[in-house]
Amino acid sequence: MGKKIGVILSGCGVYDGSEIHEAVFTLLAIDANGAEAVCMAPDIELAEVNHISGEATGAKRNVLLESARIARGKIVNIKEVKAGDLDAVILPGGFGAAKNLCDFAVKGAAASIQPDVARLLKEMAAANKPIGAICIAPALVAALFGKESSPEVTIGTDPGTAAAINATGSKHIDCPVTEFVIDRKNRIVSTPAYMLAGRIGEAYEGIIKTVKAVLELC
Amino acid sequence: MGKKIGVILSGCGVYDGSEIHEAVFTLLAIDANGAEAVCMAPDIELAEVNHISGEATGAKRNVLLESARIARGKIVNIKEVKAGDLDAVILPGGFGAAKNLCDFAVKGAAASIQPDVARLLKEMAAANKPIGAICIAPALVAALFGKESSPEVTIGTDPGTAAAINATGSKHIDCPVTEFVIDRKNRIVSTPAYMLAGRIGEAYEGIIKTVKAVLELC
Repeated sequence: MGKKIGVILSGCGVYDGSEIHEAVFTLLAIDANGAEAVCMAPDIELAEVNHISGEATGAKRNVLLESARIARGKIVNIKEVKAGDLDAVILPGGFGAAKNLCDFAVKGAAASIQPDVARLLKEMAAANKPIGAICIAPALVAALFGKESSPEVTIGTDPGTAAAINATGSKHIDCPVTEFVIDRKNRIVSTPAYMLAGRIGEAYEGIIKTVKAVLELC
Repeated sequence: MGKKIGVILSGCGVYDGSEIHEAVFTLLAIDANGAEAVCMAPDIELAEVNHISGEATGAKRNVLLESARIARGKIVNIKEVKAGDLDAVILPGGFGAAKNLCDFAVKGAAASIQPDVARLLKEMAAANKPIGAICIAPALVAALFGKESSPEVTIGTDPGTAAAINATGSKHIDCPVTEFVIDRKNRIVSTPAYMLAGRIGEAYEGIIKTVKAVLELC
């Protein structure tokens, strides 16, 4: 049996959910490494954003149902998942990671994490199982673990976001888009992806390397 | 300047729009070959499908707005695109290709094609520019061109769909998931992708090869 890698989705679309390219490359890299993806998301609302204008529409959608689009229907409610079910977990980026899975987009270093997401990530850390975080998702990981284990993570080079990450007690490390940062003590791997990527191929390269690094830590 | 490759999207999600993995791999392969993707979709309604239950919800969404999620906001109304703007065009699959861009899912060989999509594809053929079609999208191409140029296309091996394609006047060729069929006379390249793929990596392999073949025809 291959390793089971949880993929925590936050909707479907960069402005109100998971960044689609990042999520798909995560699934591809898991498969390419002979592992099995277990897609999951919380059963909560998101605030819909028009992806042409970038404006909020005022309408709500459901994070689990929208995430199912990326997962082709094969998805579970994160509430039902335990660390014992998984060998590692990976969070793709997109604004959903900072607005739906936590409120980092609004509250920065003082962010609170969606309870089911926080519970699973804490369980993974306690079980010494690796966590991968892509794009803005490392900010969630930083906010969750900053005070207790000061993880080293990257979101690329954005000074404002880096400062907010440092303010959580975590440590931001600058990193180019096609590379990743690995915190071996805390078993956390992160990559900037579309926090920096100008081209889809740059996001792809960083994510492929990141997922491989996560799997090597399992 | 790199080649400009049109990507005709039909929404965002396999059951009511573009198959997301196929669309993302198309964009990745275009970039990997040094070309530029021009994402486009018609400004029409789609019938929303719940991607966990597979059931229609009764609600409507907009094809152009949903497609913008895959395109990260960089998308144009297909009505504004002319063959002169492009070097080739590619249609990812998903039910949207057979329900929104045409009505093949309901009418089979008697399908009619959304007028802007039909107009652009006819212009491309008249200009001798290549067309790529993925998953179920070759059925649209077959229905559009069957009577006039009898193109050879593949959707994999499904006998019912193959029969409907043959009934358009086109010719279906069986093809494994990681390969493609090329009709050099009509400059049409097609691959089964998720009509056959059991794993995301299989869809990836067939699409990477298909996009490369389309670009070599430009």
